[in-house]
Amino acid sequence: MEKMGNASYWKTRRTIRKYDNSRSVSDELLCDLMEKAMQAPTTGNMQLYSVVVTRDNEKLADLATEHFNQPASTGADVLLTFCADFNRFTKWCDARNAKHGFGNLQSLMSAVLDTTIVAQQFTTLAEMAGLGVCYLGTTTYNAPGIATKLGLPKMVVPVVTLAVGYPAEDGEVSDRLPLDGVMHYETYKDYSAEDIDRIYAPKEAREDSKRFVAENGKETLAQVFTDVRYPERNNVAFSEVLSGFLKSAGF
Amino acid sequence: MEKMGNASYWKTRRTIRKYDNSRSVSDELLCDLMEKAMQAPTTGNMQLYSVVVTRDNEKLADLATEHFNQPASTGADVLLTFCADFNRFTKWCDARNAKHGFGNLQSLMSAVLDTTIVAQQFTTLAEMAGLGVCYLGTTTYNAPGIATKLGLPKMVVPVVTLAVGYPAEDGEVSDRLPLDGVMHYETYKDYSAEDIDRIYAPKEAREDSKRFVAENGKETLAQVFTDVRYPERNNVAFSEVLSGFLKSAGF
Repeated sequence: MEKMGNASYWKTRRTIRKYDNSRSVSDELLCDLMEKAMQAPTTGNMQLYSVVVTRDNEKLADLATEHFNQPASTGADVLLTFCADFNRFTKWCDARNAKHGFGNLQSLMSAVLDTTIVAQQFTTLAEMAGLGVCYLGTTTYNAPGIATKLGLPKMVVPVVTLAVGYPAEDGEVSDRLPLDGVMHYETYKDYSAEDIDRIYAPKEAREDSKRFVAENGKETLAQVFTDVRYPERNNVAFSEVLSGFLKSAGF
Repeated sequence: MEKMGNASYWKTRRTIRKYDNSRSVSDELLCDLMEKAMQAPTTGNMQLYSVVVTRDNEKLADLATEHFNQPASTGADVLLTFCADFNRFTKWCDARNAKHGFGNLQSLMSAVLDTTIVAQQFTTLAEMAGLGVCYLGTTTYNAPGIATKLGLPKMVVPVVTLAVGYPAEDGEVSDRLPLDGVMHYETYKDYSAEDIDRIYAPKEAREDSKRFVAENGKETLAQVFTDVRYPERNNVAFSEVLSGFLKSAGF
């Protein structure tokens, strides 16, 4: 075993949402990163995922609409849609006289975990190689539209999308909750009112947080999340779309 | 941006299932790794996860039964249960007069992604620091039992468990599918019978694959997966348990 390399990377990693249009990520680099990322752990070594690479300008613009044209999606050099995939595996089973039963929640969970793990491993590798990466959390909101545009067959579900390119900004290291707000020892210690105040105080005290509250005409930062960014009506509507999509995809 | 360090790690990483009982992972190291892992991307910077550390010997043995006493679980120095957590966030919302609506599928998906991303980032960091790590895919199978033993409140769902310790074996680099079996360009190119044969041929030709087939009295490697490792009756039964648990947890 070697010593940890690249020590300074880990605490200074940052999401990049603006990309240098004059530079393109080569297929060679993309493949090298993906091949390494694929060594990440996967359920029973089944590799229950596929990755669709979108690079063509027209297709990029078309796919970005499914991500509400957020700047990271319209400006990306490449979009990588990581999909939970039981299509390939069940085709193999069919060809090998193996009666499979993966059209259910647990199997979907395994595929979602596999997919997310490989996407995160790719992200780390890409960032370490000097690329900028941004997760598009909109992928599951518009799964049906994405599936149509990418030609996904049944048993394939888009889970996460990475916008990738050479950085045209420095980005900022994001604030995080204190470690003791997230870690529990032996059993989960539920949060008291005082715990909550203490854990969220540094975030609430930030200048950008105060600006979000003011700009949105809210009383508290939490209201920016519940009323503006993730309102219940959106969560419920997108859940119904996703639920219907999962059924039609065979899960 | 710096050059990629630790280049040899990525293609040689391996899962470790046997741990050196004479060495314990210090709390200091655990916290250092987790603090770095928490810089991984997270949905809207909400950090929708918690981590429960199990180190006490009696509690370890008790928790291992929920993982079917697989050797990595009974032999681990520490078990880390990574949970999707909307409990902390909604307690914050409640305390800040913010009306939240996260008891739905999309919100759960966001939390599952956050949780898996931070677990994978922790895995990479731990492996690079010389620790051995093994994902326990059994976590969602026995979510109710795990939740009871760890004292998880509503809105908290165990997603992945990592067994962690100093390695007592070298482990093996796992075989993976060829890259072109996983990557698609612009649109998903569905697999022909010939594609399937080609993609899975190297795996089927391995000596250990042939041994699995023989030991289990099967005709094909795919049947080992469908009849022995992941039979439909298990997938369906565990799906019902998980589905019920998610409802009772508030999703």
